[in-house]
Amino acid sequence: MLEKWKPEKIKRCSRSDLNVLCDELRSVIYETVMECGGHLASNLGAVEPTVALFYVFDFPRDKIVFDVGHQCYAYKLLSGRADRFGTLRKEGGLSGFPKRKESEYDCYDTGHAGTSVSAALGIAKARDLLNEDYNVIAFIGDGSFNNGLIYEALNSLRILNTRILIVLNDNGMSISPTVGGMHDILNRIKAGGGEENIRLLEKFGLTYRGVYNGNDAEEMIDALTEAKELLKTQSVLLHIVTKKGKGYEFSEEHPTNTHGVSPVGARKDKEYSEVLGSTLCELAREDGRITAVTAAMTESLGLDKFFALYPERAFDVGICEENASVLCAAMASAGLKPYYAIYSTFLQRAFDEIIHDVCAQDMPVTFCVDRAGISGADGETHQGVFDLSYLSLIPGLTIAVPKDTEEFKEMLRFSANFAHPLAIRYPRSGRIVFPSAKAPVEPGKWEYLHRAENSEVTVLATGERCLVVAMKILKRLHEKGMDFDVVNVRFVKPLDEEVLQRCAGRRVVTIEDNVLLGGVGQMISAELARRRENEDFSVKNFAYRDEFIPQGNVGDLQREYGVDCSEIEEYIAGLFR
Amino acid sequence: MLEKWKPEKIKRCSRSDLNVLCDELRSVIYETVMECGGHLASNLGAVEPTVALFYVFDFPRDKIVFDVGHQCYAYKLLSGRADRFGTLRKEGGLSGFPKRKESEYDCYDTGHAGTSVSAALGIAKARDLLNEDYNVIAFIGDGSFNNGLIYEALNSLRILNTRILIVLNDNGMSISPTVGGMHDILNRIKAGGGEENIRLLEKFGLTYRGVYNGNDAEEMIDALTEAKELLKTQSVLLHIVTKKGKGYEFSEEHPTNTHGVSPVGARKDKEYSEVLGSTLCELAREDGRITAVTAAMTESLGLDKFFALYPERAFDVGICEENASVLCAAMASAGLKPYYAIYSTFLQRAFDEIIHDVCAQDMPVTFCVDRAGISGADGETHQGVFDLSYLSLIPGLTIAVPKDTEEFKEMLRFSANFAHPLAIRYPRSGRIVFPSAKAPVEPGKWEYLHRAENSEVTVLATGERCLVVAMKILKRLHEKGMDFDVVNVRFVKPLDEEVLQRCAGRRVVTIEDNVLLGGVGQMISAELARRRENEDFSVKNFAYRDEFIPQGNVGDLQREYGVDCSEIEEYIAGLFR
Repeated sequence: MLEKWKPEKIKRCSRSDLNVLCDELRSVIYETVMECGGHLASNLGAVEPTVALFYVFDFPRDKIVFDVGHQCYAYKLLSGRADRFGTLRKEGGLSGFPKRKESEYDCYDTGHAGTSVSAALGIAKARDLLNEDYNVIAFIGDGSFNNGLIYEALNSLRILNTRILIVLNDNGMSISPTVGGMHDILNRIKAGGGEENIRLLEKFGLTYRGVYNGNDAEEMIDALTEAKELLKTQSVLLHIVTKKGKGYEFSEEHPTNTHGVSPVGARKDKEYSEVLGSTLCELAREDGRITAVTAAMTESLGLDKFFALYPERAFDVGICEENASVLCAAMASAGLKPYYAIYSTFLQRAFDEIIHDVCAQDMPVTFCVDRAGISGADGETHQGVFDLSYLSLIPGLTIAVPKDTEEFKEMLRFSANFAHPLAIRYPRSGRIVFPSAKAPVEPGKWEYLHRAENSEVTVLATGERCLVVAMKILKRLHEKGMDFDVVNVRFVKPLDEEVLQRCAGRRVVTIEDNVLLGGVGQMISAELARRRENEDFSVKNFAYRDEFIPQGNVGDLQREYGVDCSEIEEYIAGLFR
Repeated sequence: MLEKWKPEKIKRCSRSDLNVLCDELRSVIYETVMECGGHLASNLGAVEPTVALFYVFDFPRDKIVFDVGHQCYAYKLLSGRADRFGTLRKEGGLSGFPKRKESEYDCYDTGHAGTSVSAALGIAKARDLLNEDYNVIAFIGDGSFNNGLIYEALNSLRILNTRILIVLNDNGMSISPTVGGMHDILNRIKAGGGEENIRLLEKFGLTYRGVYNGNDAEEMIDALTEAKELLKTQSVLLHIVTKKGKGYEFSEEHPTNTHGVSPVGARKDKEYSEVLGSTLCELAREDGRITAVTAAMTESLGLDKFFALYPERAFDVGICEENASVLCAAMASAGLKPYYAIYSTFLQRAFDEIIHDVCAQDMPVTFCVDRAGISGADGETHQGVFDLSYLSLIPGLTIAVPKDTEEFKEMLRFSANFAHPLAIRYPRSGRIVFPSAKAPVEPGKWEYLHRAENSEVTVLATGERCLVVAMKILKRLHEKGMDFDVVNVRFVKPLDEEVLQRCAGRRVVTIEDNVLLGGVGQMISAELARRRENEDFSVKNFAYRDEFIPQGNVGDLQREYGVDCSEIEEYIAGLFR
């Protein structure tokens, strides 16, 4: 039904037309997210502001950058993509985030928080220098507005000397409720906190305007019309208050649970984060030094119970990944034992602090790196496929990768007495528990899941997903009379010297849920090449090839980008010929 | 003369004693920096505040975190390190930055900007949870106060629910003059901008106090005494105005030139940055799309001329490395051709933005990565030895490493027409220009600097420093009748497939000015191991071992940490036996 709406048509709408349109948008978003999964609550709240934006501005001539991108569904629906909206987040389908490749209406790709204001400034400056004429808008939620990048961008407003409109969509939430000083300031403004709070934002060079019912399309149109006029001579911050989950009662009441929604009927496995939560609670009961730090995603990391049981030792600092890292390093420097839980892709933001604050000072901080490996439907910006590479290059960091949730538990227990920086990386879902006898967790010690007699072949696999592949192949080739060693590479750093020594002169295959470059396979290859002396050996790395991996089903993407079970099986079988 | 001063003694000082002490400190700092090199102007400006801190607080029981650390010399002199101060920045000597390993007075290591407030908060929270009782101070310059981490830390003040004192030492400068919105706000406060500007900072949960003559020890003592009292119940921001370079006329007038000072008589070579400046000016004359972006260090990157000639296309955004990256990606998205010049170590801060904003969108941004490799006297926090590893894992990024300043020029010219993300990494100093015939710069094409007849040995060396080592060894071994190929690895990414093909079955040696892990040597080893099939080959990587590299002479550190000319020579000679 939305196909009939064109940007030109919206501009000629009556008030009641607009309300119909908003209802239609809301119901398509709701139905599609139930079907495909996606970001529900934030997108429901952004419907009226988006309709108003189309009413007032001329896209794609005017440019809009959606911070993170959790609020762009209505925009996609109104910019010629309604007919494809049913493919949302599916392989080859519409992205859940803005994508330049997808439409000329998307001018800048987002996914991680806080980039929109800098991006809008950069685009506006390019417009000025190239003597072009269009409006540039950053559309940002209050959760993202906490990120350090925003402050850096506000600081550079006058330096850039250009004009942008920032629409600050304030629904009081990130994935978790928004927290922090800037949030308090916005709240006081909303509560009628008067002139001085408003002037705060003007000091950076922004003219402030507020709309306290951002879910009223007409109010939004009036405010945007004024903002557009102001924008001719100055930068404008339009602070709009909306309801996350608007129009969908359950979502309004449960904005955290309905932030990211899985398709109806989808398998729910959340075991790794559950293990993190319960094990950390156990450890914290015995050790008063243990603290937990997260950056705006307490529940999805499994830490809600810890936060409830130990509120004085639990810190959600908002979308401030760098601050969280430094806080952990400093807490450790003064005698605490901090755990920093975060998604692999977002930990990239704290890369320098891991080096500079945690590892250079040898601080006993434990990074719990969730959603590692291919993460699926969120696409390029959210795959956790770089961490083994960017973490392993850092001196003094020990990197553990559990083979299953049971081993994850053991690794967490091990971490409690480990006095150095440690990263434990794991995927979202645990599927199986390996029946193997348990060898105690010890840095630099791998584990044989299977030992072959009289075989020249060793498979070194890292993490549950890759070990599942290796064991599946073993089972199949066993039936054909072939046998080989399967090793659980429990520590990516340090490597197991003894096992590597034993691999000299053998045929080695590595499998990892990470990019090839700089990953564990290349480190092992280089190490074997170094050690080979005059011995014979061969080594083959299965890992993701050097490309950004788009959205899709985890298993499909894994196969397609370099960790293909049949291909690996064929390669291994070839070694026996 | 300073050895006689003890923290206890300072507390009993008269006003005239304090002035004598400040004079003595200033003269020791001046003389030592002239001798050893170091950060002069910022340290001169911090003398009185530091003396006052010792007067009012009890170190090391009380804790102080110096942001960056360019203001800690007086603190070192007064905390029992005066007798060793002559070893400043020398191998095995005192660090130019705070170092926990050096003294119990140093509670937290710094070097990169913006960490102090987060660190102070983390330490203070640990104090509270462990039921200890001491004061925690963050001492930060106004340049660092621009960094996004500060905003993230301010946002978390109320979440952490603890008490810290922030001393904001406002001298109007980073390395370059401080710029930006927060800077303007501070200036208005200094100019008597009244209540509302002050309240701005209080909204985050800080009680504001100001001292407008921070170089008056008595005024500072009074202010710190009051702050200490306030600190019992709340967090305090003490804004002090000081003179960068105070007491040293030339430095007061030239705070940028005297920010970092080389030892008197030290060789001045600055060729790479000069080439960047002049070549970028040339290119910008022909191409109006070219812009230059830096993060608070225009001069040391060689860009002062560009900023003077093309002010409308030149942007110093302050110490905001992430914002600078996103601005560049966005400028490129809208038709410009941005160059982002930055030190290797500071680019670590923008790691996520290089992935997420520049490379995932395939934007034609050129990173000019200066001070790559071992950078020397600044030590652990400033070595540029990780970049080849953390950059090469990123899909879509081309990485070039010039063999000399001439080739750097060619690479910059090449970049002007290159439509994808590019990083060019180079050391501070160029020493030689290789006489070789020039092959045109082309991604994935290496260059033979020397071709041996009938030799099995190939040396693959990356960058000027390593090629100098390779050619020196070639010359020496030539005299002994040995001969081998020397290849200039001009592109670390992509690798040269043809040359690698030719290396199959040969003895290969790699040399790079980067850590071993994830570096070019390991990539080459893994690639050769993959290709070997049944051929014979050997490969040996010379690169820095997996440790943080402390301060010292560049050449000494290079040898000591894994790129030792004699060791490499011996290894190569061994291949001929």
